Amino acid sequence: MLPRTYPEENCSIARSLEILGDRWTLLVLRDALRGISRFDALQAGLGLAKNVLADRLERLVGAGILDRRLYQQRPDRSEYLVTEKGRALWPVLVAMMDWGDRYCSPLGPPRIAVHETCGGTLHAELVCDGCDLDIEAIHVSTRAGPGARRRSP
Amino acid sequence: MLPRTYPEENCSIARSLEILGDRWTLLVLRDALRGISRFDALQAGLGLAKNVLADRLERLVGAGILDRRLYQQRPDRSEYLVTEKGRALWPVLVAMMDWGDRYCSPLGPPRIAVHETCGGTLHAELVCDGCDLDIEAIHVSTRAGPGARRRSP
Repeated sequence: MLPRTYPEENCSIARSLEILGDRWTLLVLRDALRGISRFDALQAGLGLAKNVLADRLERLVGAGILDRRLYQQRPDRSEYLVTEKGRALWPVLVAMMDWGDRYCSPLGPPRIAVHETCGGTLHAELVCDGCDLDIEAIHVSTRAGPGARRRSP
Repeated sequence: MLPRTYPEENCSIARSLEILGDRWTLLVLRDALRGISRFDALQAGLGLAKNVLADRLERLVGAGILDRRLYQQRPDRSEYLVTEKGRALWPVLVAMMDWGDRYCSPLGPPRIAVHETCGGTLHAELVCDGCDLDIEAIHVSTRAGPGARRRSP
């Protein structure tokens, strides 16, 4: 079994993966961002087991990424709406789209991320606050930040 | 068991997750990008089981994200170097850092992604090729691309 949390890690990637580090979780979020909000529609689209979907939805609601809202009573039926915290994951998903388009999609991008306001195409790019230029990904390193533990390298 | 591939999916996020959709895989890549290249050092830093690390390294080498190189013989010892395809995942990792910093790091960012050339701070941002402005993540939708299957919505 893989652990679900990384108590030894003081790392924002590890903390994101505590929530997102599962194949289905990001695909559920992808479909929720496309406006697929109901359990049956999510399940039909993804083709995953109901108990797995229920678990992932529960976890996404618990993490504040989805909001559960009752849309019908007797029997109760809920839909799942993406919160601001969930929409803030667009750059993660678009960065994955870009990489998958480049390295895993020989026929070309299956889907395009669109800026609704102007109809342009969106990509996730590294942006530098120092020189104000997009940069080649190769020139990246990391250093301790304000939330680092003492003696963090 | 979760499937490792999504044959029904024609989606670059799903294809990326076929390779990356595992907590440890992205943490192994994170450390490899920091220059930790040897098995023992990766294992000590991550604290994961040797067989799990061996499996994830094998998968990353098979996917062309890491290169295995012998650095010692008798006994044979290999190191793992990140390829261009692996470095191209920086935007995914930085997007996760940014999100984790914002929502999961109350004490502030544990680490800062640095543009080595100028020393500036890096972030992963959605960039629009239509209006040339960074945009709010909320105004995103997707449409079929050139690699879409027929009748893709």
